[in-house]
Amino acid sequence: MSNTNKKIILTGDRPSGRLHLGHYIGSLQNRVKLQDSYQQYIMIADVQALTDNFEHPEKITQSVYDVTLDYLSVGIKPDVSTIFIQSQIPELTELTVYYLNLVNLGRLERNPTVKAEIQQKGFGEGIPAGFFCYPVSQAADITIFQAELVPVGDDQVPMIEQTNEIVRRFNRIYQTDCLKECKAHLSHASRLVGIDGKAKASKSLNNAIYLSDSPEEVRQKVFQMYTDPNHLKVSDPGTVEGNVVFAYLDAFHKDKEEVENLKDHYRKGGLGDVTIKKLLNETLQELIGEFRERRESINKDDLKEILVEGTRNARVKAMETIEMVRDAIGLNYFK
Amino acid sequence: MSNTNKKIILTGDRPSGRLHLGHYIGSLQNRVKLQDSYQQYIMIADVQALTDNFEHPEKITQSVYDVTLDYLSVGIKPDVSTIFIQSQIPELTELTVYYLNLVNLGRLERNPTVKAEIQQKGFGEGIPAGFFCYPVSQAADITIFQAELVPVGDDQVPMIEQTNEIVRRFNRIYQTDCLKECKAHLSHASRLVGIDGKAKASKSLNNAIYLSDSPEEVRQKVFQMYTDPNHLKVSDPGTVEGNVVFAYLDAFHKDKEEVENLKDHYRKGGLGDVTIKKLLNETLQELIGEFRERRESINKDDLKEILVEGTRNARVKAMETIEMVRDAIGLNYFK
Repeated sequence: MSNTNKKIILTGDRPSGRLHLGHYIGSLQNRVKLQDSYQQYIMIADVQALTDNFEHPEKITQSVYDVTLDYLSVGIKPDVSTIFIQSQIPELTELTVYYLNLVNLGRLERNPTVKAEIQQKGFGEGIPAGFFCYPVSQAADITIFQAELVPVGDDQVPMIEQTNEIVRRFNRIYQTDCLKECKAHLSHASRLVGIDGKAKASKSLNNAIYLSDSPEEVRQKVFQMYTDPNHLKVSDPGTVEGNVVFAYLDAFHKDKEEVENLKDHYRKGGLGDVTIKKLLNETLQELIGEFRERRESINKDDLKEILVEGTRNARVKAMETIEMVRDAIGLNYFK
Repeated sequence: MSNTNKKIILTGDRPSGRLHLGHYIGSLQNRVKLQDSYQQYIMIADVQALTDNFEHPEKITQSVYDVTLDYLSVGIKPDVSTIFIQSQIPELTELTVYYLNLVNLGRLERNPTVKAEIQQKGFGEGIPAGFFCYPVSQAADITIFQAELVPVGDDQVPMIEQTNEIVRRFNRIYQTDCLKECKAHLSHASRLVGIDGKAKASKSLNNAIYLSDSPEEVRQKVFQMYTDPNHLKVSDPGTVEGNVVFAYLDAFHKDKEEVENLKDHYRKGGLGDVTIKKLLNETLQELIGEFRERRESINKDDLKEILVEGTRNARVKAMETIEMVRDAIGLNYFK
C-alpha cells in the first residue's frame, strides 16, 4: 500500500464540526492533489481538539465520522491516503511526554501561534496546561510519522520551527538520527471569506457553506451573500473588491477568463447580483453535487472500516518510531 | 495473586542510583510492613526521573535493576507487592495528556512542592515543561492504579491535593465515578542524616550508607561518622544532639532502652566514640547482612522476570482504568 520512496506528509484537522468550503480551498483540495505523489497521513486530531474543548468532548467525538465522510466526499482516497484518529495512537502521548522534557516553559510562552490563540480564546479560569503544551504534542504528531512535509498556513510556521528544535535537541542529547526534521509546505490559497463578508468562513460565525449542505442550503446561502451594498440597480457600476460572490467565483469557477470578464462588466454596470449569484450557484451545485454523490455511495460500516484500517496502518509507523525513540533513550529494558 | 478486598497503595522511587539507609528508614521499611495488609504497587519512576535527568538517561536506566534488587534485599516480596517500571506502562502518558487539560498553568505554578524543587534545582536554560507538569503525571500514576493510599512525607501533601482536584474535575466534567480520590499515608519517620551530619543522607552529597555496601564500606562509613567535635577525651561529657552515631542508633538499634542508657552515659562522660561506633557497626552489619543474604540469592534472570511479571500485572490494572477513562470522554470509537 505504502510506497516507501514517496515523501511523507502529515496533515489533518481538529474535528470540531463538519468541514466547509473554506477547508476545501485551504487544504482539502491540496490533499487530493498531493495524495498520489506523496505518502499522506491525515490525522483527525481529536486529542488536540480536546485541549480547548475538554468540557464538551461530545462536540469532538461526534465530529470524527462527519469529518471522515467530508474527506471521502472531496476525493481523498482511503486506499492511498492514511486517514486515522489521533486518540487511537497512544504512542503519540508517550512521545509527547518525552518531548516535554526538551522544551522550556519560556520557549512555549514565546510561541507566537499559541500566544495569538490564547488571546483569541480568552480562557476563563486560566490557560489549561494541555493547551499550552499542544505545540509539543504537535511535534510528536509530525515526527512519529517521520513526516518531511507539513502543509501549513503562514501562521503555523512557528510550530514547524518548534518541532525542528525538538528534533535537533533529541537527536543531539540521545545521540541518534532517528528523528527527522520537517519542512512547512506553505499553502498559497487565500482564506475564504464568510458569506456575510466577514473575515473567514467559520462554524462559530455561522457563515460557511458546508461540504455536506443540501442543494437548497447551498442555493439559499449563495443568494444571501454579501455583495456591494451600493449596487442598487443593475445598471449601477458595482464594486468587486469585498464582494463575496466574486471571491467565491475566483475560488471555485473553473474559467478564470470568464470571471475576469464578469468583473469588468460588473464594475462598468449592467450586470445584476442575481445573474452572478445564479452563476455561482451553478458552480457550487456542481462541485458540492460531486461531493454528495461520493458521500452517498459510502455506508457507515465502510466508514468505520476505513478508520480502523487507517488507524492500524498509522499505528504501525508510530510504533516503529517509538521503538527507535525508546532505544535511543535506553528504555527498552526487556528487549 | 491480588486480593481485591485489600486497599490499594501506590508508592515508588525515582531510579537515580542505588538506595541507601535513608530510603530504608523513610519508606522501604514501611513498604515491607504494609505489603501483606494492602495491595501494594511499587513504581520504578523512570519517566519521572527523566524530567530532571533527561540529558543523562543512562543514570536512570542503569539504576532500574539496582533499585529492584534493593527492594528485594530489604524483604519486599515480588509475589505480594507489584513492582513495575513506569515507562513500560504507556497508558500513564495517555492519562497524563488527558489530565493536562484539567489543570491550569497558574495552579501548577502555585504547587509548593514543585516551587521548592525548581528553586533547589536551579535549571540552567529554564524550567523544562516536563518537570513543570510532573504533578499531573503523578496524578496519572496514582489514579490509574486506583490507589486509595499514597505514602508520602509532609512535603508531598500538595501533590495529593492536586491529584484529588484532577479526580474531582474529571469525574464532574465527564459525569463518571471511574476515578478515585486518594489519601496521603503520612510517614512519621524522621529523615536520616548523612554520615557527615549534614541535613540528609543523599547520593549527591556522598554521605550515605547504601543497602548494597560491603561490610568493609559499612565499617569505614560508621567510623567516619560525625559525632561531637568537643568530645576529645573518653572522660569528657559529650553531646547527643546532632551526633550522627546516636541518630543512627535511634533509627536502627532494636533496644531503645539500651540506646537511652548509652545516651545518658555519653552525656555524663566516660563513654568513648569508638565504643558507640562499634555498637552501631554491629547493628548495621546485622541489618545489611540480612539484605546481602537476600540479594545474593537472586540472579539477574530472576530479577528481569520479576520486573516483566510485575509490569504485566500493573499494566492490566492501568488498561482497565484507561478503558473507563476513554469511555467517559467518549474516545472508544471502535468498540
